[in-house]
Amino acid sequence: MNPTIMQVVPVTFTYPVHFTEHLFDPQHSLLDDTLSGNRPASDQVPRVLCVVDDGVLAAFPGLEAQIQAYFAAHPDLCLVAPPLAVPGGERCKSDPKQVERVHEAINTHGVDRHAYVVAVGGGAVLDMVGYAAATAHRGVRLVRVPTTVLSQNDSAVGVKNSVNAFGKKNWLGTFAPPYAVLNDRAFLTTLEDRDWLGGLSEALKVALLKDAAFFGWLETNAAALAARDREAMDYAVYRCAQLHLEHIAGSGDPFERGSSRPLDFGHWAAHKLESLSGYRLRHGEAVAAGVALDCTYAALSGLLPETEWRRILAVLRTLRLAVHVPEMGSGAQDAQDPGSVLSGLNEFREHLGGRLTIPLLTGIASPIEVHEMDHDLLRRAIALLDDVQAQGHVPSPALLDPQGAL
Amino acid sequence: MNPTIMQVVPVTFTYPVHFTEHLFDPQHSLLDDTLSGNRPASDQVPRVLCVVDDGVLAAFPGLEAQIQAYFAAHPDLCLVAPPLAVPGGERCKSDPKQVERVHEAINTHGVDRHAYVVAVGGGAVLDMVGYAAATAHRGVRLVRVPTTVLSQNDSAVGVKNSVNAFGKKNWLGTFAPPYAVLNDRAFLTTLEDRDWLGGLSEALKVALLKDAAFFGWLETNAAALAARDREAMDYAVYRCAQLHLEHIAGSGDPFERGSSRPLDFGHWAAHKLESLSGYRLRHGEAVAAGVALDCTYAALSGLLPETEWRRILAVLRTLRLAVHVPEMGSGAQDAQDPGSVLSGLNEFREHLGGRLTIPLLTGIASPIEVHEMDHDLLRRAIALLDDVQAQGHVPSPALLDPQGAL
Ligand SMILES: NC(=O)c1ccc[n+]([C@@H]2O[C@H](COP(=O)([O-])OP(=O)(O)OC[C@H]3O[C@@H](n4cnc5c(N)ncnc54)[C@H](O)[C@@H]3O)[C@@H](O)[C@H]2O)c1
Ligand SMILES: NC(=O)c1ccc[n+]([C@@H]2O[C@H](COP(=O)([O-])OP(=O)(O)OC[C@H]3O[C@@H](n4cnc5c(N)ncnc54)[C@H](O)[C@@H]3O)[C@@H](O)[C@H]2O)c1
Ligand SMILES: [Zn+2]
Ligand SMILES: [Zn+2]
Repeated sequence: MNPTIMQVVPVTFTYPVHFTEHLFDPQHSLLDDTLSGNRPASDQVPRVLCVVDDGVLAAFPGLEAQIQAYFAAHPDLCLVAPPLAVPGGERCKSDPKQVERVHEAINTHGVDRHAYVVAVGGGAVLDMVGYAAATAHRGVRLVRVPTTVLSQNDSAVGVKNSVNAFGKKNWLGTFAPPYAVLNDRAFLTTLEDRDWLGGLSEALKVALLKDAAFFGWLETNAAALAARDREAMDYAVYRCAQLHLEHIAGSGDPFERGSSRPLDFGHWAAHKLESLSGYRLRHGEAVAAGVALDCTYAALSGLLPETEWRRILAVLRTLRLAVHVPEMGSGAQDAQDPGSVLSGLNEFREHLGGRLTIPLLTGIASPIEVHEMDHDLLRRAIALLDDVQAQGHVPSPALLDPQGAL
Repeated sequence: MNPTIMQVVPVTFTYPVHFTEHLFDPQHSLLDDTLSGNRPASDQVPRVLCVVDDGVLAAFPGLEAQIQAYFAAHPDLCLVAPPLAVPGGERCKSDPKQVERVHEAINTHGVDRHAYVVAVGGGAVLDMVGYAAATAHRGVRLVRVPTTVLSQNDSAVGVKNSVNAFGKKNWLGTFAPPYAVLNDRAFLTTLEDRDWLGGLSEALKVALLKDAAFFGWLETNAAALAARDREAMDYAVYRCAQLHLEHIAGSGDPFERGSSRPLDFGHWAAHKLESLSGYRLRHGEAVAAGVALDCTYAALSGLLPETEWRRILAVLRTLRLAVHVPEMGSGAQDAQDPGSVLSGLNEFREHLGGRLTIPLLTGIASPIEVHEMDHDLLRRAIALLDDVQAQGHVPSPALLDPQGAL
């Protein structure tokens, strides 16, 4: 007898994503409600470990004291230690010591599966702290407080964490939904321009994939966003987060077991550009260039009408996001060369495993999936974007005409 | 405006658990079917990394060659390297180098999210390799080939992995369902008696919690099992695995986010005894003593009728499983002392987080949950079990009589 049992394990993850301001103001009840809600009466006071991005601490010199004051004013919560500062940006994901430091703090301060790690910072810090929290005791509760546009509208609302290993981005990680996400708009005020603008490339990306009305809104509001209009940013962050959340909930594959990753539009090139730049480029900046490349490729191959290609490039330019970066190289490059952006295609396939699957646009909010990309056409797209970036404007229609110059 | 989006992410994990024999016989198609099934035609040949318990390699000197011969006979699969041997038993979970070795092999040999790690070994090796596989690329496909009774009937059919850290058992880990579980009965023939018998304590445990008929079957077949009857073991493993699988699928909390862990009957003491023994005691042996302790406690406190207590102890004794071990100590001990088994109660609460929740029996297959245990009564139970173990038989009824000696 060779019996087989087919096991089926249904799991539902639920978490709130709040949009607010001045979260750590002692008068504000949201953090307390989040941490103390939903506990049986016999429980002890919830234990909380805070881990904070040192770039955020530098931008808000009073923050550390404010966090301590918040917990002092809320004795129904127990802050187990002064906030733990970790280096902001990609270096916290590349240094294995940082995960160890978070693990040590979780262990030393008795943070158990019903206690909380509150992580405050950009996408990189949230990814690193998220990985540490997900692996300690098979997962302690993680509350994410994202402080950049990119993390508030994309990375922190999702179900992934990661750190770098073997010199490879995101080599280690898990799928682990957070306990809650608390988006505080006040944090965005201190961002450098590049981070304010860079994160908007994910909004453009998801609009192009899913929502023509949101793309129209971005077109209309690109100038206000570039001028750091806060109300415009509120809506851009909210709608982008919402579209990402809807995709994750409804995709049928939130833990990405298939070969296709429909939200990763423009990302095969983006990941490669980030790595070629030694992470000088931020994720959002690389995504802008990657989206420009795949849109131009789609236009050159006749998939995407030229008028729509022009509208997309115009939004990128109004947002001051580069459509060509030095790491993208020239129109003469060899896909076999690991220094070429083109080698990112194969690396993308390898990271996902299985078959290469790339989303391309046939129109605004009208994507299809392709399983190969023509290297010659990609080189033409790169050369064209190099021109656009150098000349500072989108070239005349003839350039895309099959009878035209290219 | 302070909007909130409530995110709901449903995920369903599906995996087969097969019961078979001679899995690596080149004639046997199950492994090939498991690894090559369900792939789009355009995919490459599936890449497979094998990691094997060195205790299993010692017990089956031809195994390494047989694995290589299997893949040589199945060119639709690609074995990326000779099987990687890792130390068997608890030491592989306590040595962080072992996880690193598996990560390095996954990286070096290009094992991606659609490739496989096949782990062959006892529960400890499967836990360690499972942790490495779950964290690489946010999870590569893990096929578990458990080789002990305990892993075939319990640990390998579930959704958890772990390694030890900070001197604490299972401190690091994730919830990560396997791709498939392949239970090969032929592996069990070389187990030491202690491993053949020890794993049966999980069968007794789950019968006591969920299935009076299975408990009756164990009573009837305990002598045959103790005499290493292979057909009896087949059924014990199958039914125990099935009950564990049903629990995980139907519990509503497969990833254990609540405070209660209904399958962990007798486990608060078992975990502590394992650690007090420096892992001289195997998990199954410790579970036997832990189950004996909680049954005796329930009997002394009047929850569990004495006749049923006697039946349970008789099964344990027929299976030659100790109901008292030196690490359990005497009837005089202080729960504050970390060297006392009683301190395991609080450690169990801390590991799970939240409120202490312990399953106790009111009868066979009739558990309830309690939130505290009386230390005096536990000390009396320990003293009684010490006697039972020393005298080699269960004492006369008077011992449990409220008017009696204890
Ligand atoms: N998990 C996911 O699903 C996912 C998705 C997309 C991107 N990511 C990851 O996110 C990371 C990028 O995140 P990011 O774009 O937020 O950049 P970042 O985290 O690298 O932060 C950029 C810089 O801004 C600083 N900073 C953060 N908040 C600030 C504030 N309020 N004021 C001033 N300075 C502040 C940081 O200290 C850092 O120096 C990458 O590692 C990327 O891989 C993850
Ligand atoms: N993940 C879970 O849900 C879960 C549940 C219960 C237990 N566990 C873990 O399982 C581990 C215990 O597993 P175990 O009881 O299988 O013991 P084990 O893995 O420690 O193995 C015991 C010994 O048997 C050897 N061995 C394995 N297979 C053999 C075979 N076929 N022939 C001869 N020798 C063989 C091993 O090399 C080792 O020396 C513990 O670490 C425990 O924490 C995990
Ligand atoms: Zn992105
Ligand atoms: Zn167990």
